Amino acid sequence: MTTMATLQDLRTPSLIVDLDVVEANLERGARYAAAHGLALRPHVKTHKSPLLGAMQLAHGATGLTCATTYEATVMSAVTDDVLIAYPPVGRVRAEAIAALPSTVRPIVALDSEDAIRDIAQAAANARRTIGVYVELDVGMLRVGVPDVTDALALAASVDRARWLEFAGITVYPGHIREAVDEQTAALQALETALADAIERFRAAGLPPRVVSGGSTPTIWRTHEVPSITEMRPGTYIFNDRTTAGIGACAWEDCAATVLATVISTSVPGQAVIDAGTKSLGREPMRGVAGEGFGALRARPDVMVTRMSEEHGILDLRDSDWQPAVGEQVRVVPNHICIAVHLHDEAIGLRGGAPVERWPISARGREPALRVPMR
Amino acid sequence: MTTMATLQDLRTPSLIVDLDVVEANLERGARYAAAHGLALRPHVKTHKSPLLGAMQLAHGATGLTCATTYEATVMSAVTDDVLIAYPPVGRVRAEAIAALPSTVRPIVALDSEDAIRDIAQAAANARRTIGVYVELDVGMLRVGVPDVTDALALAASVDRARWLEFAGITVYPGHIREAVDEQTAALQALETALADAIERFRAAGLPPRVVSGGSTPTIWRTHEVPSITEMRPGTYIFNDRTTAGIGACAWEDCAATVLATVISTSVPGQAVIDAGTKSLGREPMRGVAGEGFGALRARPDVMVTRMSEEHGILDLRDSDWQPAVGEQVRVVPNHICIAVHLHDEAIGLRGGAPVERWPISARGREPALRVPMR
Repeated sequence: MTTMATLQDLRTPSLIVDLDVVEANLERGARYAAAHGLALRPHVKTHKSPLLGAMQLAHGATGLTCATTYEATVMSAVTDDVLIAYPPVGRVRAEAIAALPSTVRPIVALDSEDAIRDIAQAAANARRTIGVYVELDVGMLRVGVPDVTDALALAASVDRARWLEFAGITVYPGHIREAVDEQTAALQALETALADAIERFRAAGLPPRVVSGGSTPTIWRTHEVPSITEMRPGTYIFNDRTTAGIGACAWEDCAATVLATVISTSVPGQAVIDAGTKSLGREPMRGVAGEGFGALRARPDVMVTRMSEEHGILDLRDSDWQPAVGEQVRVVPNHICIAVHLHDEAIGLRGGAPVERWPISARGREPALRVPMR
Repeated sequence: MTTMATLQDLRTPSLIVDLDVVEANLERGARYAAAHGLALRPHVKTHKSPLLGAMQLAHGATGLTCATTYEATVMSAVTDDVLIAYPPVGRVRAEAIAALPSTVRPIVALDSEDAIRDIAQAAANARRTIGVYVELDVGMLRVGVPDVTDALALAASVDRARWLEFAGITVYPGHIREAVDEQTAALQALETALADAIERFRAAGLPPRVVSGGSTPTIWRTHEVPSITEMRPGTYIFNDRTTAGIGACAWEDCAATVLATVISTSVPGQAVIDAGTKSLGREPMRGVAGEGFGALRARPDVMVTRMSEEHGILDLRDSDWQPAVGEQVRVVPNHICIAVHLHDEAIGLRGGAPVERWPISARGREPALRVPMR
């Protein structure tokens, strides 16, 4: 047998995940959801792995949330309760949802009659019931209808569609990104909006069974929006520099890092690592001020301040750290969901040593089978 | 047989490539290199496909340039002349280079004695000659030694190493990003620096056989730096919004786009497409002012101004275009190398129709074989 690998045996950049920290993060989320009577439906976009999805289901999750149809297909291996929190627009996307394994009860989120038409057609063709959340915009200005009257009309259309089932309303409070202790006013506004919407849905004879919302930035304050019955945090499994920055986790709760090697110190005042845009992503800090695209786990004051595709520049002008060429570092990315999407596999650590790896199975998308492969 | 696919049959987002435009771009690069007596060694980081690497070799390329060892391994299928333009630091990276197929004559670029030590050790263990370019920093402030005296010392060390061969000097003029017609002063400064360095290398008895440099932003002005003997453009095969913005290509020369679908118009003043950070990348315009992360091929004034992971927001407040939900659009990304890296396959178009697809074979990295797969 081979001897146990060490970090020095890994090529860099590599995505490495401290499994002890993952378990603590999942346990904390599960306890919070249980304490407040919230259904927990984690968003798998962060990890894109059915293995980690199964861990979430073992830690209190009642189902999983996906953004892409490929994520939904992959996660069908571990749960029958899949929310595709994405408008099912277009024949190809709607048909992929209707073609999910028959064990799955799919739910989609939508905000238009066009989406209803597409998913209703696919559901009818497949003779399969698909649940629908009607999405409200509560300030994110992305998808969702801003006006409750429009939302009610959509719910009524869904209710009339033979193979669709109105399953609730959903919001994504992704506009609430400020530091955790500054979220009070925004959370109160969200509750006011939701309570009003729920009342109008009830009055119209379409009471929402589920009110789905909740993000990682607001995770520990979700109960302050009592209308919400289901939360969908994604990042909480790994956390990242942004999550720590706004105070929604401690720095030590960041489970996933990019292992990198110092490859050059030839330009004074900096060190260059082999993790750049193609392994870290170019995501800004959000919600709180913060320079750079990631910071060293062991030295949070040392940041990746510039990047090329395969180079990250650590600005050392204000640091007394003098790294050697060849030295390994672990970078906490600003936004871990993007960093994970840039890797094909993750390497799990126990006690600091790599003990297992797994594919980021849902990272890709469906192959274009109708086009000949060259 | 299946009928021919159309764009409507593709899931979105998809990476689509107009092969007629690719061929014209490659032909233009080949003609320029030939006209000026420049060796053409394209950087494959842009396309990461041996099929496109082979097209480049059929269009005047004398060899290929890679950033990662995985790219080098994949490209070994189509050429024996591979430059890994990256410091071969660390045992894992150096051993991967020394383990390239025996048909390949690898060259590396480096800027430190540490890198020389690592690659010399790997070369000795493999009993294989590896060529070395010594890298100079000429203003990019990334890798490369700023001081020619230091570069000479590195070249002398390489010359003394049993299995290393001093093959030339290299620079990456990536700091020259201004509009093409504003590059004169920077190109003149580059020529002055290179001519001085070459003279000193000659005087030291280490005349560089190759002076490697040249990027896509400077591609058509490379001959104004007569010291350069070899150019390494990457982006020129596809071009992108930045390349068009600085005037190094026409908008119609952008060969690769992300096909996306309008999935929501519910928030006034915008349309939302299904291409976000995870398919377009979050790259700013560089070299010239420009908002957004990409623009529509058919309407360059319509830009992706905000993004989530799977959402791109098209700001329509100043546009009279009123897209329908379900409508397809093609987005020219700011930086195509990043967009390609986000996709597993590309779909080739002829006459606007999808006719073939190919894997982005070198997108990934070596699996961590010493760590058990779960």
